[in-house]
Amino acid sequence: MPGRKAPEEYRRKDILRAAYDVAARHGVEALTVRAVAGRAAVSHGTVLFHFNRRDQLIASLLDSVLDATTTLRVPADVERLTRPAERLRALLRAEMERLSSDPRHYRLFLEYWALGVRNAAIRRRVSEALHGYRRAFRDVCEALTREERAVPRPSGTRMNGRLAPTPDGLAEVAVSLVHGCALQAVIDPKAFSVQQHFGSAARMLDGHAAGALAR
Amino acid sequence: MPGRKAPEEYRRKDILRAAYDVAARHGVEALTVRAVAGRAAVSHGTVLFHFNRRDQLIASLLDSVLDATTTLRVPADVERLTRPAERLRALLRAEMERLSSDPRHYRLFLEYWALGVRNAAIRRRVSEALHGYRRAFRDVCEALTREERAVPRPSGTRMNGRLAPTPDGLAEVAVSLVHGCALQAVIDPKAFSVQQHFGSAARMLDGHAAGALAR
Repeated sequence: MPGRKAPEEYRRKDILRAAYDVAARHGVEALTVRAVAGRAAVSHGTVLFHFNRRDQLIASLLDSVLDATTTLRVPADVERLTRPAERLRALLRAEMERLSSDPRHYRLFLEYWALGVRNAAIRRRVSEALHGYRRAFRDVCEALTREERAVPRPSGTRMNGRLAPTPDGLAEVAVSLVHGCALQAVIDPKAFSVQQHFGSAARMLDGHAAGALAR
Repeated sequence: MPGRKAPEEYRRKDILRAAYDVAARHGVEALTVRAVAGRAAVSHGTVLFHFNRRDQLIASLLDSVLDATTTLRVPADVERLTRPAERLRALLRAEMERLSSDPRHYRLFLEYWALGVRNAAIRRRVSEALHGYRRAFRDVCEALTREERAVPRPSGTRMNGRLAPTPDGLAEVAVSLVHGCALQAVIDPKAFSVQQHFGSAARMLDGHAAGALAR
Protein backbone atom coordinates (compact mmCIF):
# COMPACT_ATOMS: atom_id res chain seq x y z
CA MET A 1 0.00 0.00 0.00
CA PRO A 2 1.82 3.19 -1.10
CA GLY A 3 2.25 5.92 1.50
CA ARG A 4 1.84 3.49 4.39
CA LYS A 5 5.50 3.07 5.32
CA ALA A 6 5.96 6.43 6.99
CA PRO A 7 2.94 6.14 9.34
CA GLU A 8 4.09 2.62 10.31
CA GLU A 9 7.48 4.04 11.21
CA TYR A 10 5.85 6.69 13.37
CA ARG A 11 3.69 4.05 15.01
CA ARG A 12 6.78 1.98 15.81
CA LYS A 13 8.47 4.99 17.41
CA ASP A 14 5.36 5.77 19.45
CA ILE A 15 5.33 2.22 20.78
CA LEU A 16 9.03 2.40 21.65
CA ARG A 17 8.46 5.69 23.44
CA ALA A 18 5.63 4.08 25.40
CA ALA A 19 7.97 1.18 26.28
CA TYR A 20 10.51 3.72 27.54
CA ASP A 21 7.88 5.39 29.75
CA VAL A 22 6.71 2.06 31.19
CA ALA A 23 10.26 0.93 31.99
CA ALA A 24 11.32 4.32 33.37
CA ARG A 25 8.38 4.30 35.77
CA HIS A 26 8.06 0.68 36.73
CA GLY A 27 11.30 -1.02 35.70
CA VAL A 28 12.31 -3.23 32.79
CA GLU A 29 10.62 -6.24 34.42
CA ALA A 30 7.27 -4.43 34.04
CA LEU A 31 7.77 -4.15 30.28
CA THR A 32 4.95 -6.38 28.99
CA VAL A 33 3.14 -6.21 25.66
CA ARG A 34 -0.06 -5.42 27.57
CA ALA A 35 1.47 -2.53 29.56
CA VAL A 36 3.08 -1.01 26.46
CA ALA A 37 -0.10 -1.32 24.38
CA GLY A 38 -2.03 0.44 27.15
CA ARG A 39 0.51 3.24 27.41
CA ALA A 40 0.69 3.75 23.61
CA ALA A 41 -3.12 3.51 23.31
CA VAL A 42 -2.89 0.87 20.59
CA SER A 43 -4.06 -2.73 20.49
CA HIS A 44 -2.10 -5.70 21.78
CA GLY A 45 -1.94 -6.91 18.14
CA THR A 46 -0.40 -3.64 16.95
CA VAL A 47 2.45 -3.98 19.46
CA LEU A 48 3.01 -7.58 18.36
CA PHE A 49 2.93 -6.54 14.67
CA HIS A 50 5.88 -4.21 15.33
CA PHE A 51 7.79 -6.09 18.01
CA ASN A 52 6.77 -9.71 17.64
CA ARG A 53 7.14 -10.53 21.32
CA ARG A 54 8.17 -9.19 24.73
CA ASP A 55 11.87 -10.10 24.27
CA GLN A 56 12.04 -7.92 21.21
CA LEU A 57 10.54 -4.95 23.05
CA ILE A 58 13.18 -5.39 25.74
CA ALA A 59 15.98 -5.66 23.17
CA SER A 60 14.80 -2.62 21.18
CA LEU A 61 14.52 -0.50 24.30
CA LEU A 62 18.02 -1.64 25.33
CA ASP A 63 19.30 -0.38 21.96
CA SER A 64 17.87 3.09 22.58
CA VAL A 65 19.12 3.17 26.17
CA LEU A 66 22.65 2.22 25.08
CA ASP A 67 22.51 4.75 22.26
CA ALA A 68 21.70 7.43 24.86
CA THR A 69 24.34 6.37 27.41
CA THR A 70 27.27 4.82 25.54
CA THR A 71 27.43 6.74 22.27
CA LEU A 72 29.86 9.63 22.37
CA ARG A 73 28.20 12.86 21.26
CA VAL A 74 30.61 15.46 19.85
CA PRO A 75 29.02 18.93 20.09
CA ALA A 76 29.67 21.29 17.15
CA ASP A 77 31.93 23.60 19.18
CA VAL A 78 34.02 20.63 20.33
CA GLU A 79 34.30 19.45 16.71
CA ARG A 80 36.37 22.59 16.00
CA LEU A 81 38.92 22.00 18.79
CA THR A 82 42.14 20.59 17.43
CA ARG A 83 44.41 20.49 20.50
CA PRO A 84 43.98 16.99 21.99
CA ALA A 85 44.06 18.14 25.64
CA GLU A 86 41.37 20.76 25.02
CA ARG A 87 39.30 18.37 22.99
CA LEU A 88 39.37 15.62 25.62
CA ARG A 89 38.49 18.10 28.35
CA ALA A 90 35.54 19.47 26.36
CA LEU A 91 34.29 15.97 25.53
CA LEU A 92 34.44 14.93 29.18
CA ARG A 93 32.56 18.02 30.26
CA ALA A 94 29.83 17.53 27.64
CA GLU A 95 29.39 13.84 28.47
CA MET A 96 29.38 14.36 32.26
CA GLU A 97 26.71 17.01 31.90
CA ARG A 98 24.66 15.03 29.38
CA LEU A 99 24.61 11.72 31.30
CA SER A 100 23.92 13.39 34.63
CA SER A 101 21.13 15.59 33.30
CA ASP A 102 18.57 12.89 32.50
CA PRO A 103 18.33 10.43 35.39
CA ARG A 104 15.89 8.24 33.48
CA HIS A 105 18.41 7.26 30.80
CA TYR A 106 21.10 6.48 33.29
CA ARG A 107 18.83 4.58 35.64
CA LEU A 108 17.65 2.39 32.77
CA PHE A 109 21.27 1.83 31.71
CA LEU A 110 22.16 0.51 35.17
CA GLU A 111 18.98 -1.53 35.34
CA TYR A 112 19.89 -3.26 32.08
CA TRP A 113 23.47 -3.64 33.35
CA ALA A 114 22.13 -5.50 36.41
CA LEU A 115 19.80 -7.62 34.25
CA GLY A 116 22.85 -8.54 32.18
CA VAL A 117 24.20 -10.41 35.19
CA ARG A 118 21.69 -13.19 34.58
CA ASN A 119 21.07 -12.73 30.87
CA ALA A 120 23.97 -13.43 28.52
CA ALA A 121 22.40 -11.65 25.50
CA ILE A 122 21.88 -8.42 27.47
CA ARG A 123 25.34 -8.70 29.05
CA ARG A 124 26.93 -9.03 25.61
CA ARG A 125 25.14 -5.96 24.27
CA VAL A 126 26.04 -3.82 27.32
CA SER A 127 29.69 -4.86 27.26
CA GLU A 128 29.96 -4.26 23.48
CA ALA A 129 28.44 -0.83 23.97
CA LEU A 130 30.94 0.09 26.73
CA HIS A 131 33.73 -1.18 24.52
CA GLY A 132 32.52 1.06 21.69
CA TYR A 133 32.35 4.04 24.06
CA ARG A 134 35.98 3.49 25.10
CA ARG A 135 36.96 3.23 21.43
CA ALA A 136 35.24 6.55 20.70
CA PHE A 137 37.42 8.23 23.36
CA ARG A 138 40.52 6.40 22.20
CA ASP A 139 41.27 8.59 19.14
CA VAL A 140 41.63 11.79 21.11
CA CYS A 141 43.49 9.91 23.88
CA GLU A 142 45.92 8.60 21.29
CA ALA A 143 46.57 12.08 19.94
CA LEU A 144 47.14 13.30 23.51
CA THR A 145 49.63 10.59 24.48
CA ARG A 146 51.45 11.02 21.13
CA GLU A 147 51.82 14.74 21.86
CA GLU A 148 53.12 14.03 25.36
CA ARG A 149 55.66 11.51 24.14
CA ALA A 150 56.93 14.08 21.64
CA VAL A 151 57.83 16.53 24.42
CA PRO A 152 61.64 16.63 24.72
CA ARG A 153 62.68 15.38 28.16
CA PRO A 154 65.46 17.13 30.07
CA SER A 155 68.15 15.00 31.69
CA GLY A 156 67.17 13.79 35.15
CA THR A 157 63.77 12.86 33.74
CA ARG A 158 61.77 10.57 36.03
CA MET A 159 59.56 8.95 33.42
CA ASN A 160 58.28 5.85 35.13
CA GLY A 161 57.81 2.91 32.78
CA ARG A 162 55.16 1.33 34.99
CA LEU A 163 52.98 4.39 34.62
CA ALA A 164 53.65 5.09 30.95
CA PRO A 165 50.52 6.59 29.38
CA THR A 166 48.60 4.42 26.95
CA PRO A 167 45.68 5.61 24.83
CA ASP A 168 43.64 2.58 25.96
CA GLY A 169 44.27 3.26 29.63
CA LEU A 170 43.39 6.92 29.25
CA ALA A 171 40.18 6.01 27.39
CA GLU A 172 39.23 3.58 30.18
CA VAL A 173 39.72 6.36 32.72
CA ALA A 174 37.66 8.79 30.61
CA VAL A 175 34.75 6.32 30.62
CA SER A 176 35.11 5.84 34.40
CA LEU A 177 34.95 9.58 34.93
CA VAL A 178 31.77 9.99 32.86
CA HIS A 179 29.95 6.96 34.26
CA GLY A 180 31.22 7.48 37.82
CA CYS A 181 29.91 11.04 37.64
CA ALA A 182 26.46 9.91 36.46
CA LEU A 183 26.35 7.12 39.06
CA GLN A 184 26.87 9.58 41.91
CA ALA A 185 24.90 12.51 40.45
CA VAL A 186 21.76 10.61 39.60
CA ILE A 187 21.28 8.78 42.91
CA ASP A 188 22.23 11.79 44.99
CA PRO A 189 21.65 15.04 43.06
CA LYS A 190 21.67 17.29 46.16
CA ALA A 191 25.00 16.19 47.63
CA PHE A 192 26.93 15.91 44.36
CA SER A 193 28.20 18.68 42.11
CA VAL A 194 28.76 17.75 38.45
CA GLN A 195 30.54 21.08 37.97
CA GLN A 196 32.99 20.44 40.79
CA HIS A 197 33.55 16.88 39.55
CA PHE A 198 34.37 18.21 36.10
CA GLY A 199 36.72 20.85 37.57
CA SER A 200 38.74 18.22 39.43
CA ALA A 201 38.86 15.85 36.48
CA ALA A 202 39.98 18.68 34.19
CA ARG A 203 42.71 19.66 36.60
CA MET A 204 43.96 16.08 36.66
CA LEU A 205 44.02 16.04 32.87
CA ASP A 206 45.86 19.36 32.77
CA GLY A 207 48.30 17.86 35.23
CA HIS A 208 48.64 14.82 32.98
CA ALA A 209 49.92 17.11 30.24
CA ALA A 210 51.81 19.49 32.56
CA GLY A 211 53.35 16.46 34.28
CA ALA A 212 54.76 15.32 30.97
CA LEU A 213 56.27 18.77 30.46
CA ALA A 214 57.68 18.89 33.98
CA ARG A 215 59.45 15.55 33.83
CA MET B 1 18.88 -19.20 78.44
CA PRO B 2 22.63 -18.85 79.09
CA GLY B 3 24.98 -19.79 76.24
CA ARG B 4 22.26 -19.37 73.62
CA LYS B 5 23.24 -15.95 72.31
CA ALA B 6 26.30 -17.01 70.36
CA PRO B 7 24.59 -19.79 68.40
CA GLU B 8 21.72 -17.43 67.55
CA GLU B 9 24.22 -14.96 66.19
CA TYR B 10 25.78 -17.69 64.03
CA ARG B 11 22.33 -18.70 62.83
CA ARG B 12 21.56 -15.11 61.85
CA LYS B 13 24.81 -14.88 59.87
CA ASP B 14 24.07 -18.18 58.12
CA ILE B 15 20.68 -16.89 57.06
CA LEU B 16 22.20 -13.64 55.79
CA ARG B 17 24.80 -15.61 53.83
CA ALA B 18 21.99 -17.69 52.32
CA ALA B 19 20.16 -14.45 51.39
CA TYR B 20 23.33 -13.25 49.67
CA ASP B 21 23.58 -16.48 47.66
CA VAL B 22 19.93 -16.32 46.60
CA ALA B 23 20.21 -12.67 45.50
CA ALA B 24 23.57 -13.16 43.77
CA ARG B 25 22.14 -16.03 41.70
CA HIS B 26 18.60 -14.92 41.05
CA GLY B 27 18.43 -11.21 41.83
CA VAL B 28 17.13 -9.19 44.78
CA GLU B 29 13.55 -9.65 43.55
CA ALA B 30 13.91 -13.40 44.17
CA LEU B 31 14.78 -12.78 47.83
CA THR B 32 11.77 -14.38 49.56
CA VAL B 33 11.57 -15.85 53.06
CA ARG B 34 10.83 -19.24 51.46
CA ALA B 35 13.87 -19.14 49.12
CA VAL B 36 16.21 -18.05 51.90
CA ALA B 37 14.90 -20.69 54.34
CA GLY B 38 15.45 -23.35 51.68
CA ARG B 39 18.98 -22.19 50.94
CA ALA B 40 19.93 -21.95 54.65
CA ALA B 41 18.24 -25.30 55.39
CA VAL B 42 16.21 -23.82 58.25
CA SER B 43 12.48 -23.43 58.72
CA HIS B 44 10.41 -20.54 57.44
CA GLY B 45 9.76 -19.67 61.11
CA THR B 46 13.49 -19.49 61.90
CA VAL B 47 14.03 -16.93 59.13
CA LEU B 48 11.07 -14.91 60.43
CA PHE B 49 12.41 -15.13 63.99
CA HIS B 50 15.62 -13.43 62.86
CA PHE B 51 14.37 -11.10 60.14
CA ASN B 52 10.69 -10.54 60.90
CA ARG B 53 9.69 -10.14 57.23
CA ARG B 54 10.95 -10.00 53.66
CA ASP B 55 11.60 -6.22 53.77
CA GLN B 56 14.00 -6.71 56.62
CA LEU B 57 15.93 -9.42 54.76
CA ILE B 58 16.26 -7.03 51.82
CA ALA B 59 17.39 -4.17 54.09
CA SER B 60 19.92 -6.33 55.99
CA LEU B 61 21.40 -7.66 52.76
CA LEU B 62 21.63 -4.08 51.44
CA ASP B 63 23.66 -3.19 54.55
CA SER B 64 26.19 -5.93 53.85
CA VAL B 65 26.38 -5.09 50.14
CA LEU B 66 27.02 -1.40 50.92
CA ASP B 67 29.57 -2.36 53.54
CA ALA B 68 31.42 -4.36 50.86
CA THR B 69 31.22 -1.71 48.13
CA THR B 70 31.17 1.72 49.78
CA THR B 71 33.33 1.32 52.87
CA LEU B 72 36.92 2.36 52.30
CA ARG B 73 39.33 -0.39 53.35
CA VAL B 74 42.80 0.86 54.30
CA PRO B 75 45.33 -2.01 53.99
CA ALA B 76 48.05 -2.15 56.67
CA ASP B 77 50.84 -1.20 54.25
CA VAL B 78 48.83 1.83 53.09
CA GLU B 79 48.26 2.82 56.72
CA ARG B 80 52.01 3.49 56.98
CA LEU B 81 52.19 5.85 53.98
CA THR B 82 52.31 9.47 55.09
CA ARG B 83 52.80 11.37 51.80
CA PRO B 84 49.27 12.28 50.64
CA ALA B 85 49.95 11.62 46.93
CA GLU B 86 51.35 8.15 47.64
CA ARG B 87 48.57 7.37 50.03
CA LEU B 88 45.79 8.37 47.63
CA ARG B 89 47.43 6.37 44.83
CA ALA B 90 47.71 3.28 47.04
CA LEU B 91 44.11 3.61 48.24
CA LEU B 92 42.82 3.91 44.68
CA ARG B 93 44.78 0.86 43.58
CA ALA B 94 43.55 -1.24 46.51
CA GLU B 95 39.92 -0.21 45.99
CA MET B 96 39.97 -0.68 42.20
CA GLU B 97 41.37 -4.17 42.66
CA ARG B 98 39.02 -5.05 45.51
CA LEU B 99 35.79 -3.91 43.85
CA SER B 100 36.66 -5.45 40.50
CA SER B 101 37.72 -8.78 41.96
CA ASP B 102 34.34 -9.96 43.23
CA PRO B 103 31.69 -9.39 40.56
CA ARG B 104 28.92 -10.60 42.88
CA HIS B 105 29.31 -7.72 45.34
CA TYR B 106 29.42 -5.13 42.63
CA ARG B 107 26.52 -6.60 40.69
CA LEU B 108 24.37 -6.58 43.81
CA PHE B 109 25.41 -2.99 44.51
CA LEU B 110 24.17 -1.90 41.07
CA GLU B 111 21.04 -3.98 41.39
CA TYR B 112 20.17 -2.20 44.64
CA TRP B 113 21.12 1.12 43.02
CA ALA B 114 18.57 0.42 40.26
CA LEU B 115 15.93 -0.68 42.82
CA GLY B 116 16.51 2.61 44.61
CA VAL B 117 15.03 4.37 41.60
CA ARG B 118 11.56 3.26 42.66
CA ASN B 119 12.12 2.79 46.39
CA ALA B 120 12.88 5.88 48.46
CA ALA B 121 14.21 3.95 51.48
CA ILE B 122 16.74 2.02 49.36
CA ARG B 123 17.70 5.18 47.46
CA ARG B 124 18.38 7.02 50.71
CA ARG B 125 20.62 4.22 52.03
CA VAL B 126 22.61 3.96 48.74
CA SER B 127 23.11 7.71 48.48
CA GLU B 128 24.16 7.99 52.14
CA ALA B 129 26.66 5.19 51.59
CA LEU B 130 28.17 6.89 48.53
CA HIS B 131 28.35 10.12 50.50
CA GLY B 132 30.24 8.30 53.28
CA TYR B 133 32.61 6.77 50.74
CA ARG B 134 33.45 10.22 49.35
CA ARG B 135 33.99 11.49 52.90
CA ALA B 136 36.42 8.65 53.58
CA PHE B 137 38.53 9.76 50.60
CA ARG B 138 38.22 13.41 51.55
CA ASP B 139 40.84 13.42 54.35
CA VAL B 140 43.69 12.30 52.12
CA CYS B 141 42.42 14.57 49.31
CA GLU B 142 42.45 17.50 51.70
CA ALA B 143 46.05 16.77 52.72
CA LEU B 144 46.99 16.54 49.04
CA THR B 145 45.41 19.85 48.01
CA ARG B 146 46.90 21.56 51.09
CA GLU B 147 50.35 20.35 50.07
CA GLU B 148 49.82 21.56 46.51
CA ARG B 149 48.66 24.98 47.63
CA ALA B 150 51.78 25.29 49.81
CA VAL B 151 54.09 24.92 46.80
CA PRO B 152 55.66 28.34 46.11
CA ARG B 153 54.56 29.57 42.69
CA PRO B 154 57.04 31.27 40.36
CA SER B 155 55.98 34.46 38.62
CA GLY B 156 54.14 33.83 35.36
CA THR B 157 52.14 31.17 37.17
CA ARG B 158 49.03 30.10 35.27
CA MET B 159 46.94 28.95 38.19
CA ASN B 160 43.42 28.93 36.84
CA GLY B 161 40.80 29.84 39.44
CA ARG B 162 38.05 27.96 37.62
CA LEU B 163 39.98 24.72 38.01
CA ALA B 164 41.28 25.28 41.54
CA PRO B 165 41.56 21.93 43.32
CA THR B 166 39.09 21.23 46.09
CA PRO B 167 39.24 18.24 48.44
CA ASP B 168 35.57 17.53 47.75
CA GLY B 169 36.03 17.56 43.99
CA LEU B 170 39.07 15.31 44.20
CA ALA B 171 37.16 12.88 46.46
CA GLU B 172 34.27 12.81 43.96
CA VAL B 173 36.72 11.94 41.20
CA ALA B 174 38.34 9.23 43.34
CA VAL B 175 34.93 7.57 43.81
CA SER B 176 34.24 7.84 40.05
CA LEU B 177 37.54 6.14 39.28
CA VAL B 178 36.87 3.23 41.65
CA HIS B 179 33.24 2.69 40.67
CA GLY B 180 33.83 3.38 36.97
CA CYS B 181 36.58 0.75 37.05
CA ALA B 182 34.31 -1.85 38.67
CA LEU B 183 31.44 -1.00 36.29
CA GLN B 184 33.59 -1.72 33.23
CA ALA B 185 35.63 -4.59 34.68
CA VAL B 186 32.74 -6.63 36.01
CA ILE B 187 30.53 -6.56 32.91
CA ASP B 188 33.44 -7.07 30.53
CA PRO B 189 36.37 -8.79 32.26
CA LYS B 190 38.09 -9.87 29.04
CA ALA B 191 38.24 -6.50 27.30
CA PHE B 192 39.11 -4.41 30.35
CA SER B 193 42.38 -4.21 32.27
CA VAL B 194 42.15 -3.07 35.89
CA GLN B 195 45.94 -2.77 35.94
CA GLN B 196 46.02 -0.47 32.93
CA HIS B 197 43.14 1.56 34.35
CA PHE B 198 45.04 2.03 37.59
CA GLY B 199 48.22 3.00 35.70
CA SER B 200 46.42 5.76 33.83
CA ALA B 201 44.62 7.04 36.90
CA ALA B 202 47.90 7.09 38.86
CA ARG B 203 49.60 9.01 36.10
CA MET B 204 46.84 11.58 36.16
CA LEU B 205 47.22 11.92 39.92
CA ASP B 206 50.99 12.28 39.58
CA GLY B 207 50.31 14.94 36.99
CA HIS B 208 47.91 16.63 39.39
CA ALA B 209 50.80 17.07 41.81
CA ALA B 210 53.45 17.68 39.15
CA GLY B 211 51.11 20.19 37.51
CA ALA B 212 51.00 22.18 40.73
CA LEU B 213 54.81 22.17 40.85
CA ALA B 214 55.10 23.18 37.20
CA ARG B 215 52.81 26.19 37.44
